[in-house]
Amino acid sequence: MESQVMIQPRYAETDQMGVVYHGNYFTYYEVGRTQFFADAGYSYRKLEEEGVILPVLSCESKFKKPVKYGEPIIVKTTIDFIKRIRIGFLYKIYRKSDGVLLAEGKSTHAFVNKELKPIKRSELNEAFQKILKTIE
Amino acid sequence: MESQVMIQPRYAETDQMGVVYHGNYFTYYEVGRTQFFADAGYSYRKLEEEGVILPVLSCESKFKKPVKYGEPIIVKTTIDFIKRIRIGFLYKIYRKSDGVLLAEGKSTHAFVNKELKPIKRSELNEAFQKILKTIE
Amino acid sequence: MESQVMIQPRYAETDQMGVVYHGNYFTYYEVGRTQFFADAGYSYRKLEEEGVILPVLSCESKFKKPVKYGEPIIVKTTIDFIKRIRIGFLYKIYRKSDGVLLAEGKSTHAFVNKELKPIKRSELNEAFQKILKTIE
Amino acid sequence: MESQVMIQPRYAETDQMGVVYHGNYFTYYEVGRTQFFADAGYSYRKLEEEGVILPVLSCESKFKKPVKYGEPIIVKTTIDFIKRIRIGFLYKIYRKSDGVLLAEGKSTHAFVNKELKPIKRSELNEAFQKILKTIE
Repeated sequence: MESQVMIQPRYAETDQMGVVYHGNYFTYYEVGRTQFFADAGYSYRKLEEEGVILPVLSCESKFKKPVKYGEPIIVKTTIDFIKRIRIGFLYKIYRKSDGVLLAEGKSTHAFVNKELKPIKRSELNEAFQKILKTIE
Repeated sequence: MESQVMIQPRYAETDQMGVVYHGNYFTYYEVGRTQFFADAGYSYRKLEEEGVILPVLSCESKFKKPVKYGEPIIVKTTIDFIKRIRIGFLYKIYRKSDGVLLAEGKSTHAFVNKELKPIKRSELNEAFQKILKTIE
Repeated sequence: MESQVMIQPRYAETDQMGVVYHGNYFTYYEVGRTQFFADAGYSYRKLEEEGVILPVLSCESKFKKPVKYGEPIIVKTTIDFIKRIRIGFLYKIYRKSDGVLLAEGKSTHAFVNKELKPIKRSELNEAFQKILKTIE
Repeated sequence: MESQVMIQPRYAETDQMGVVYHGNYFTYYEVGRTQFFADAGYSYRKLEEEGVILPVLSCESKFKKPVKYGEPIIVKTTIDFIKRIRIGFLYKIYRKSDGVLLAEGKSTHAFVNKELKPIKRSELNEAFQKILKTIE
């Protein structure tokens, strides 16, 4: 399963180099992840309301060409892996106008409860377990 | 009472105009407010841990000269007013090198509990009430 | 003329109060302003490429009800005034699901060139002057 | 050479998980990098004014324990490598109160001019070349 979302880079996201600040790409990846959950039929917000949180264990990004204000981008999100207590995502950012790859990234997340204690995949609620099976 | 704090503007806070993005001044004002509470002897963090939250009801800023990356600033914070269920702050941002006034702002906050219900000033804990009396 | 744009609040924009950080509303207003220029037929990016910049002279916001992650909003933008060397915008943020007003704001901008020197409205390029006349 | 800088996490940097948003660690790393240049005797701002820019080619972070509002941190920055047209930094974030390691990260940067064309290390100005030799 691959999820797509369009983003209009914002002026606030640029820096004095005239392009989007590198740290803000991780917000774009978050938007991709949110869209992925929505497309899979289970909003990340709902998941949190049920007491499951997915804090980031690690993340990385490679920057090939700059993202610019006024140039819409497409974020494509896929699953890297789903393990017993962890899930990994892959992201690619393309310029909308010509499809050129601008950046790619990764993030790994833990399944934890509100006290930030690990939850095993097998202990997650059934509906979400089904979703995980589908997207795997 | 007036509180002072020095801030080094960050690259991330600039935009493609080559100066700090206007929305980020409100983060500088927040740093001023945090310092104000610290100087008054009652950290904002402690206040929140005791269940008192100060959400922003309104805020504003005037921008006179740009704040720039590499030019440290001083934020001076004072109390505008303290009312039954509200508190107001005033902020001034000066360039550290020459003391020129760069911006000034205001914010008004409610006293509320974790369920975002108003708390009257008279219902706040005694230690914090004493602080309010002092800074008034 | 009134412009509308839908925004999905992002996790990155929330704070530990569990709602969107007040300073980030100014980024939502920026998105509204960008949409306003697009709807008026003259992108803000194009304007900047032609050497006209609109730095913010002042801005303010009132916060009525919190904006939350997972609850899409609508930003409506209108012109407050257009003067010889300044332009003012008004913003309203509504919850998309039920149309409730969550916040409202204002910003005032100067017309300046890349050296941040004021440009009179009558000195702006003709195409943009026409746009200003239309939206007034 | 190792550089150190203390940072007070800001409320604006937290998210609704109650801890600092992962993307904001890259801003902390930037603060570390800026301090590193200052300690080396050549401010990054000055470097940019001379036409040398260091855009990020890649970055990554591992998150061990959360950074929290009200808990000051120390960012320690060292050089990973200096090559013909690239420079790499390593970062570690420690909790100030007890020295516990909270996160670690990396970033790789290109030497480019204002047109974003690569500059070879041997073409950089002499003063900065000397600095590079010292910190290597």
